[in-house]
Amino acid sequence: MISPLPIPTLPDAPLLDGGGWTSVPGARCGIARGPIKPTTRSPDVAVLLAPGVAAGVTTRSTAAAAPCRWCRDRLPGFVQAMVVNAGNANASTGPQGIADVLETARVAADALGCSPDEVLISSTGVIGVPLPMDRLLSAVQAAASAPSASGLDAARAIMTTDLVAKQAAVRIEGITVGGMAKGSGMIHPDMATMLAFVAADVRVAPDDLQALVADVAKRTFNAITVDGDMSTNDTLTVHAIGQGPAIAPGDAQWDAFARGVEVVCRTLSQAIARDGEGANHLLAVSVAGASDDATARRAARAIARSPLVKSALHGHDPNWGRIVGALGAVGVPGLERLDLDLAGVPVLRGGAPVGGWNESQASANMKEDTVQITARLSNGAGVGWAWGCDLSADYVRINADYRS
Amino acid sequence: MISPLPIPTLPDAPLLDGGGWTSVPGARCGIARGPIKPTTRSPDVAVLLAPGVAAGVTTRSTAAAAPCRWCRDRLPGFVQAMVVNAGNANASTGPQGIADVLETARVAADALGCSPDEVLISSTGVIGVPLPMDRLLSAVQAAASAPSASGLDAARAIMTTDLVAKQAAVRIEGITVGGMAKGSGMIHPDMATMLAFVAADVRVAPDDLQALVADVAKRTFNAITVDGDMSTNDTLTVHAIGQGPAIAPGDAQWDAFARGVEVVCRTLSQAIARDGEGANHLLAVSVAGASDDATARRAARAIARSPLVKSALHGHDPNWGRIVGALGAVGVPGLERLDLDLAGVPVLRGGAPVGGWNESQASANMKEDTVQITARLSNGAGVGWAWGCDLSADYVRINADYRS
Repeated sequence: MISPLPIPTLPDAPLLDGGGWTSVPGARCGIARGPIKPTTRSPDVAVLLAPGVAAGVTTRSTAAAAPCRWCRDRLPGFVQAMVVNAGNANASTGPQGIADVLETARVAADALGCSPDEVLISSTGVIGVPLPMDRLLSAVQAAASAPSASGLDAARAIMTTDLVAKQAAVRIEGITVGGMAKGSGMIHPDMATMLAFVAADVRVAPDDLQALVADVAKRTFNAITVDGDMSTNDTLTVHAIGQGPAIAPGDAQWDAFARGVEVVCRTLSQAIARDGEGANHLLAVSVAGASDDATARRAARAIARSPLVKSALHGHDPNWGRIVGALGAVGVPGLERLDLDLAGVPVLRGGAPVGGWNESQASANMKEDTVQITARLSNGAGVGWAWGCDLSADYVRINADYRS
Repeated sequence: MISPLPIPTLPDAPLLDGGGWTSVPGARCGIARGPIKPTTRSPDVAVLLAPGVAAGVTTRSTAAAAPCRWCRDRLPGFVQAMVVNAGNANASTGPQGIADVLETARVAADALGCSPDEVLISSTGVIGVPLPMDRLLSAVQAAASAPSASGLDAARAIMTTDLVAKQAAVRIEGITVGGMAKGSGMIHPDMATMLAFVAADVRVAPDDLQALVADVAKRTFNAITVDGDMSTNDTLTVHAIGQGPAIAPGDAQWDAFARGVEVVCRTLSQAIARDGEGANHLLAVSVAGASDDATARRAARAIARSPLVKSALHGHDPNWGRIVGALGAVGVPGLERLDLDLAGVPVLRGGAPVGGWNESQASANMKEDTVQITARLSNGAGVGWAWGCDLSADYVRINADYRS
């Protein structure tokens, strides 16, 4: 009898029921319909009001969209609002795309009574099509002038192929952190994949906030990109909009704040993986015993992004050789001593197959909503996680037919 | 009117009709049925006789199968034969797998009257299951003792999920190069993906041959791995079995030989991409104007491996933003000046969308058997190619149901 691998403990906290962006005191939002895509019937523009310090991370793609470049130049810093549109990514749009971002910021700033430099912009949707500026600017003005929508309404307005709106909030030691995200799990650069916006009622220094966001993103949003690709528009911003005394790393309140950001980001990122196009399962991968945490995360991602692992999960086929293959393909060392559990069933110990492993039990366990893969190396103390989903024929249908 | 991008010229030569491994004087083969997979009804073991100098490349996976490790230790060098089995990859089999390779080489060497060190081994099939040694050794002995099969029969014996047997041969200036390959295009490490064996009637030095194989592999077999992954068992060997005077780089005959190896390897590798699981199209990507050839190849592969580009191809959807997204995700610089043609239709010039591009023409062209994507950067003189296939719902079905 081989004991199951230890699953590294994740920090956690109870979510506020139905909570999101507007759970945070001072965080407001307005929505309007462009439409940005001519066929859209519901609101597809949101203006998120969050006066305070903002930090964030954006795609590392060299094809980063114009709005991402705009945000990068302003983060971390003091901002008033984030303007978001769905339906058009404003990516691969050349110099016109950059001019359109500036014009959008100007119109929002006029409505909000601030400088265009205090307005962030995010776009998501089809690549390579110029924005319909007349409709966008009218919607931005309308949304900015009536910031009375619920967080859930805004989370809905920024959706593209998402099946469900994604929001989350927690309150830890009196600090509220809440936000929203959009994204359908699988990479799909044309849909500009992943946007997430989080607010909290604390006051912090820009550089402290930037360091926190970069750190949390590694374990949350950067752990779900199923194909290792980043899209042209991926953006995560965290807005500290509290009025009280400033807090900083080392303070007890900072720990509560950081934990809140981690819980909200993890909840939102897992919701994206779970909402993967055509997906039926959440795949949770943990790797222990790597030489360091970054290597463990890379190994976990290699498993979660493998089309073969994902296809096998879809068919509830406990074909664990594909997991080893995925680790080997990205150069993970020490596989000759690998321990591996699939859906709670030990399949490999010390690099050798477990004789008489329970294949039918593994297949049965793979039918559950969340399926866990746990790998233990013996190279060091590094631990890491990744989240993904199964690959279904529906994914292909969604992506083959999206535009036509 | 924008002229189409120049497509870099590939060297080419007419193939010998029905040619393959046994087109090469002195190259013989025997086949037998294990069965290695209990359900297999046809031969699944081949012994390829090729006395002479062999060179080769194997997977860089850190989960490389035992037979790959065995080959690596002996290449380049003098060998007598390559023993191949389908149905079982002998990967993730621990120390037992290494012992099984040695035993297989011993039995083959006994039958051939040579040293076990002169016998190469390749396996392809399921990972993590010990080889059925009794059945394998009987088949190896039978195949080695009666090397009178055709190259086509051997090409069939090494197939797994392949739909068609793959062989090719050319004769250039009196030099014959011929060989076989197996693989179904898409990465599928559990099937140990890709094996290829090529012979030629020349005499060359081991190090010269190794340098040639490594160079040709970059432009052929390493340009088709659709997901950027290498499997646990990928192997390409080239056997120089001629009896005449030795030739070396710089000789006119070497150029003919090198061209023959390139044509055969390119033909076999494209046949693998075209036979991709569930695929209907061959995707041919060329990139010009990169800073160097390696960067161009990397960019071309990034396009060919993108699930979104592949899904769009399947649906004949000229959604070219996904191509830009794929290039950006792997960090290709200079995309703000990118020129791009999709299926012969100019879609992007100088980083800006081509106004009024012919979307319906592009969609119609995407229904052809071979679909070309051509990207031109302005970073340098580097050129590169990659080949792939579309991603269909059938791919998911094949890989979800393979074992269950």
